[in-house]
Amino acid sequence: MTIHDHKRPVIPVLPIVFLPSQKEIHPNGHSTLLELAREARVPLEAPCGGKHVCGKCTVIVESAKGPLPPPSDREKEVLGDLIQIGYRLACETVLTCGASVVVPEGSQHRPQVILTSETQHAYPVRLQPHVRPCYVEVPEPSLDALLADRERLLMALEKAYRLRSLQMDLFLLRRLPQVLRSGRKGVTAAIRDGKEIVALRPGREEHLYGVAFDVGTTTVVAFLLDLVSGEKRAVIPAMNPQIAVGDDVITRISFCQERPNGLDHLRGEMVSCLNGLVAEAAAESGIDPDLIVEATVVGNTAMHHLFTGLDPRYLSMAPYPPVLQEGQSLKARDLGIHIGVSAYVHLLPVKAGFVGSDTMACILATRLHKRKSPALLIDLGTNGEIVFGNRDRILCCSTAAGPAFEGGHIRWGMRASPGAIDRIRIDPDTLNVTWQTIGAERPFGICGSGIISAAAEMIRTGIILSRGNLNKTLKSSPRLREGEDGWEFVLAWAGETAAGQDMVLTQRDVAELQMAKSAVYAGAAVLIEQYGDAPFREILLAGACGNYVDPRDACTIDLFPNCLTAKVVGVGNAAGHGACLALLDKNKGKEAERIAQKAEYVELAAETRFQELFVESMWFASARDFEDDF
Amino acid sequence: MTIHDHKRPVIPVLPIVFLPSQKEIHPNGHSTLLELAREARVPLEAPCGGKHVCGKCTVIVESAKGPLPPPSDREKEVLGDLIQIGYRLACETVLTCGASVVVPEGSQHRPQVILTSETQHAYPVRLQPHVRPCYVEVPEPSLDALLADRERLLMALEKAYRLRSLQMDLFLLRRLPQVLRSGRKGVTAAIRDGKEIVALRPGREEHLYGVAFDVGTTTVVAFLLDLVSGEKRAVIPAMNPQIAVGDDVITRISFCQERPNGLDHLRGEMVSCLNGLVAEAAAESGIDPDLIVEATVVGNTAMHHLFTGLDPRYLSMAPYPPVLQEGQSLKARDLGIHIGVSAYVHLLPVKAGFVGSDTMACILATRLHKRKSPALLIDLGTNGEIVFGNRDRILCCSTAAGPAFEGGHIRWGMRASPGAIDRIRIDPDTLNVTWQTIGAERPFGICGSGIISAAAEMIRTGIILSRGNLNKTLKSSPRLREGEDGWEFVLAWAGETAAGQDMVLTQRDVAELQMAKSAVYAGAAVLIEQYGDAPFREILLAGACGNYVDPRDACTIDLFPNCLTAKVVGVGNAAGHGACLALLDKNKGKEAERIAQKAEYVELAAETRFQELFVESMWFASARDFEDDF
Repeated sequence: MTIHDHKRPVIPVLPIVFLPSQKEIHPNGHSTLLELAREARVPLEAPCGGKHVCGKCTVIVESAKGPLPPPSDREKEVLGDLIQIGYRLACETVLTCGASVVVPEGSQHRPQVILTSETQHAYPVRLQPHVRPCYVEVPEPSLDALLADRERLLMALEKAYRLRSLQMDLFLLRRLPQVLRSGRKGVTAAIRDGKEIVALRPGREEHLYGVAFDVGTTTVVAFLLDLVSGEKRAVIPAMNPQIAVGDDVITRISFCQERPNGLDHLRGEMVSCLNGLVAEAAAESGIDPDLIVEATVVGNTAMHHLFTGLDPRYLSMAPYPPVLQEGQSLKARDLGIHIGVSAYVHLLPVKAGFVGSDTMACILATRLHKRKSPALLIDLGTNGEIVFGNRDRILCCSTAAGPAFEGGHIRWGMRASPGAIDRIRIDPDTLNVTWQTIGAERPFGICGSGIISAAAEMIRTGIILSRGNLNKTLKSSPRLREGEDGWEFVLAWAGETAAGQDMVLTQRDVAELQMAKSAVYAGAAVLIEQYGDAPFREILLAGACGNYVDPRDACTIDLFPNCLTAKVVGVGNAAGHGACLALLDKNKGKEAERIAQKAEYVELAAETRFQELFVESMWFASARDFEDDF
Repeated sequence: MTIHDHKRPVIPVLPIVFLPSQKEIHPNGHSTLLELAREARVPLEAPCGGKHVCGKCTVIVESAKGPLPPPSDREKEVLGDLIQIGYRLACETVLTCGASVVVPEGSQHRPQVILTSETQHAYPVRLQPHVRPCYVEVPEPSLDALLADRERLLMALEKAYRLRSLQMDLFLLRRLPQVLRSGRKGVTAAIRDGKEIVALRPGREEHLYGVAFDVGTTTVVAFLLDLVSGEKRAVIPAMNPQIAVGDDVITRISFCQERPNGLDHLRGEMVSCLNGLVAEAAAESGIDPDLIVEATVVGNTAMHHLFTGLDPRYLSMAPYPPVLQEGQSLKARDLGIHIGVSAYVHLLPVKAGFVGSDTMACILATRLHKRKSPALLIDLGTNGEIVFGNRDRILCCSTAAGPAFEGGHIRWGMRASPGAIDRIRIDPDTLNVTWQTIGAERPFGICGSGIISAAAEMIRTGIILSRGNLNKTLKSSPRLREGEDGWEFVLAWAGETAAGQDMVLTQRDVAELQMAKSAVYAGAAVLIEQYGDAPFREILLAGACGNYVDPRDACTIDLFPNCLTAKVVGVGNAAGHGACLALLDKNKGKEAERIAQKAEYVELAAETRFQELFVESMWFASARDFEDDF
C-alpha cells in the first residue's frame, strides 16, 4: 500500500438495485449484471444461459452513480437506438458503481410448471398468466402538485414497473379512494397484459387466482388455480342444470326458440351453476373470491352461446353459423360471474357450430398441433367431435353420434357415475356374465364404456353377429331371449341388480350403438382420407367415456379406423386441462386462436363420402372372425 | 379519321369508383383524381385547394383496369413506401382507366359547422365526432368458407372501410344475429374512433345522435345533437334533483358521508333525471334513443363524482383531491344512462376538487387557451370558478363565493326564473324604484343579476355607502327603514309584488353580497398577480347570472379588477356549449385534456395574499365617488 493509497478516502460503493423486485447487491467490478441478478435471485430471463447468444436479457440502467461502460458491438446490434434511453444487455454489462436496474416485463423470467392432470399428456407450461400482482406504495396527495387518486396510483405504477397508460374500469375507480386509504402500507394492483388494472387490494397480496370452466352439455367442471404458483387449488364438478330442459344441445336450442326468455332462462341456470362452483371452490380452499382475477371458459359451441347469451338458433340451421368464432375477453360482471368485480372471462375460440372451444382446448392439451406425426383425436360424446392432423394441417368435424356413448337412448343406459357397469366379461363357454361397476356398487345401469365392453364381449362370444343382429341360434342360453322389445341379452339377473329387475342389452340398443360407432368411424375415416391417408400411430380418446374405454373393446366394435396399428390412449378431460393451460399461460390462448384459424372444418352433411362410409361401417367387421368359431 | 382508326373497336372505359361513398365517375384522360372527386361530390380533404402543397389528399388506388402513371417526385417525397401498397396523392394522379379509389378515414373531408348558442363566442367546429355510421352489406353464411356472424360483419367492414380489429361488446354481440337477419338490405355499424362498433342497426341509417349533459349543482341541461349534420335537435333543462338534499356541494358531500347508501341515492337521483331528459329530448325530436350513440358530460368535480358514483368525501378535506382527473370514456349502461346499449359516455377532465370539467368546457367554448391576449373568465356561481390566461399560460382557482349570485342567503333572493327581478333603476331624486322581471311577471323575488343591479343603483344613489352600510341619513325616503332584521330598503311595495308583501334588500343581504363579490374580486386579483399583471381586455362572464349582469353594475360594485378598462362579455352557458363542441369534434375532447394538464391550479386557501385582498375588496370603492354627491 502506497502513501497515496493510504490517504484516499474510502468511498462507500452504492448498491445496484434491481427493479421492480427491489433486490439489492453490491457491484464487485467484474460480474455482469446477469451474474449479479442471479446471485440476488432476481428473475431475469436468459434462455441462452449467458452465452451472449439470445439477446433476451434486456435491462434498463438508470440513475447510475458513476460512468457506464460503453456498449458492446453485440449490444449495439441487438438494441440499436434503445441504448440511448438506457437499455443494455445484462450479460454484456459490468457496472462498477451503484445504479437502478429495471428488469422490464419482457425480460422477467417465468418459471415452468406442470399442471397436474389425470392425462398422461401433461406437459410443462410457462407461468405467464394474463394477470399479475404489482405492489406499489402510492404517495399521499399534496397541495404542491395536486394529483387525483387515480393519477397518483398510475404514476407510482409507471415508476415502479414502467407500465404506461394503464386503464381502470368504473367499478374499480369506485373502490379506489377506500383502497388507498385503508391504513395498510401500499396497494397491490392486479394488472392484465400490462394494460389494465383488474383488481386493487390494500397492502401486499402475493397470490392471485384464476378459474377455468369446462362447460359440457352434461357436466360442468370448475378448476381453481393459483396464478402465481401454478398450483391447482380445487376442482369442483357439477351436472349442467340445463339438463332439466333436455339432454342434448338441439333440445336446448329449440327451447330458446320456442320459449320467450328461453335463452335468458338457460343462461341464468348456467351462470348460477358456475357461481355455485366458484363459491364452493373458494370456500374449500379458503380464498376470497375477489382475488379471482381471471377466468377461462371452454365448451361446445351451443354451451358457449348459452353461457354468453348469444342466440343459438342458427346453430341448428344449415350452414350452422355461430354468432362469433374468435376468442373473447369479456367482463365477468357483464356475464354475471361472481369473481373480482373488474375481472375478465376469456372464452376460447370456437371453430364451427358443432366444433367448439372444448375441441380447441383438447388440441391445446394434447399438443396435436405441434406433433410431427399425425394423430386422431376423438371426443366420445353426443356430438362426437373428431380431429385428425399434426403441426402441418388439422382437419376437424363433428358427427351427430347420438347419446349412446353417454348412456342415452339405451334401455339400461346411464351416465358414468357410481353403480354404472363400466366393464363386462362373458365366459365363451357358459355365456355367464361378470361385470365391474363404478364405485363397486350394485349395478344400477350401464355407462358408455360398459356398453362398448358388453358389445365387444358379445361379438367375441358370437352373441352379436357381424350385421349387429343377436345370434338366435344360441337359444340354449337362458340369457338370450325374446323380450317385449324384441331379442335381448341378460347382463345381470334381477337378484343381482339394484333395481331388482333383469338388466338387458336389447337388439335396439345394439342398433343405437351401431349408429353411434359408425358415425364416429366414418367421420374419422373422412378426415383421414382428406388429409391424404397419412399413417398415424396414436388415437387419443377424450371425455369421461373415452378415458375408460378398453382399447381392445373399441377395436372389436370397429369404433375407429386403424385401431389395430395405432395406440389408443385415454386423455381424460383434455378440454378442461386445455382451459387450465390457457389460464396459466396467455400464449396458450393465442395458440388456441391460431389452431382455430388453421383448422379446416369438414361439414360431414355435405360429404357424400361420409354417407357411404357411414353405411359401410355400420357392421361389426371383426365379428366375422368370431362367427366361424361358433 | 384514318382507316386504321375506323377499324379500332370501341372499348368501353370502366368508371372510377370512389370508396366508401361508392360514387362513380368516368375518367376523361386529363382530370386529376382530386378534380374527379370534386365533380363526383366525394368528400376528399385538400386544404391547399389542389395546389400540390399540403399533401393531405392521400387516396389508395386499387384494382385498376389499366396501367397507372408513375408516381411524381412529390408523391415519392410525401408517401414514401406507401406508394408500394397503392397510396397516391389525388392532386397528382391522372388515371386513364377504371379503378377503385379508396378515400381513407384521414383524407375524408369534414365539414365545418357553427353550433348555435346564446353566446357571441360560437366558433366553427369540425364535424368529427367519435362515432360515425358505416353502412355495409354482409354476405350470407356459406358452407364453403364457414364464417360466424361477427367475422362476416368485420370482414365486410374491413373491405369497405379498411377498418381492422374492430371490437364489439357483449351486448352488441347478443343483438348481432337478429340485426343481420332483419330482412333489410345491409346493416349500419356505428363505429367509434375506428376501433369499436358501438351500435348496429338493420338497413341504412344516415343519422346518429349524441347527447351533451351540463350537470350543474342547481340546474342540469341536456343537448341532443345530430352527429352527422351537427344540428342541435333539442335542449332540455331541469332542476338538479339532488337539491332536495342541499343547495350546495358541501351539503351533498356530507350526505354521502353520513348516510349509508347516500352516494347511491344521490347518483340514482341524478341518473334518473338525466334519463328523463334524454327521453324527453328524443320524444320531442322524434328520435329513437337507441340511435344516441355517444354522450359527453361536464360538471363541477362534486357533480362529476356524484354522477359517476365516485366517493366525493375527500373533495371536502384538504388538499381536496379528486378520485380522478383525466377524461374517461365509460359505457353508458355501466353508468345507468339509457342511450344506445353499447354507447360511451365521455366525461371531460377535471382539474381539482373545486375546478371541474365545466370550467375546462368553458375554456374550450371561449377559446381562452388559444387567445393571444389574456382574458379573465368567471363562472358566477356558488363556487365561483375563475380562470385567467391565454395560449401561453392558464391559471385557475375556485372561490367559495357563496350562493348570493344564485339568489341564495338573500332575504328575497331566488333563481333566475319567471317573476325574478333581474334589473333595477332608482330615481336619484325621489329614490323611486322601477324594475324589470324575467317573463315580465309580477315580482316574486330577486335573482343574482337583480341583486347586483339593486346594489349598484343603491351605491349610485348614495343609499349604500362605501363600507356597505345603508345611509341612514336618507331617512326622508319611506323606502329606507328599520325592519325586523335591521335596516332595509324597499324595492317593491306589497301591492306591487306577487307575494303581497314589501320586497326589501336588507343590510344583511348587502353584507352577503360583499362577501361574494370580494371573494371573486380577490380570487381574480390573485390569478392576475401570479400571471404577472399582464394587461387584459376582456372579462368573460359565464353562467346564467353572469350572462345577464349589466357590466356597468358589475363595475359599480367592484365585482372584478380592471372593469373600467376591460370589456365585460356574457358568454352564457359556456360549459354546456363546450360539452356540445366535444360531442361534435373528438379533437375538442383532446384539447380539454391538454387544457387540464396545462392549467395551473391555485389553492386560494393557501394564499395569504388572497386573505389580504379579500378583506381589502370588501368595501365598495366606487361608492366614495357618489358619497360626495349627497
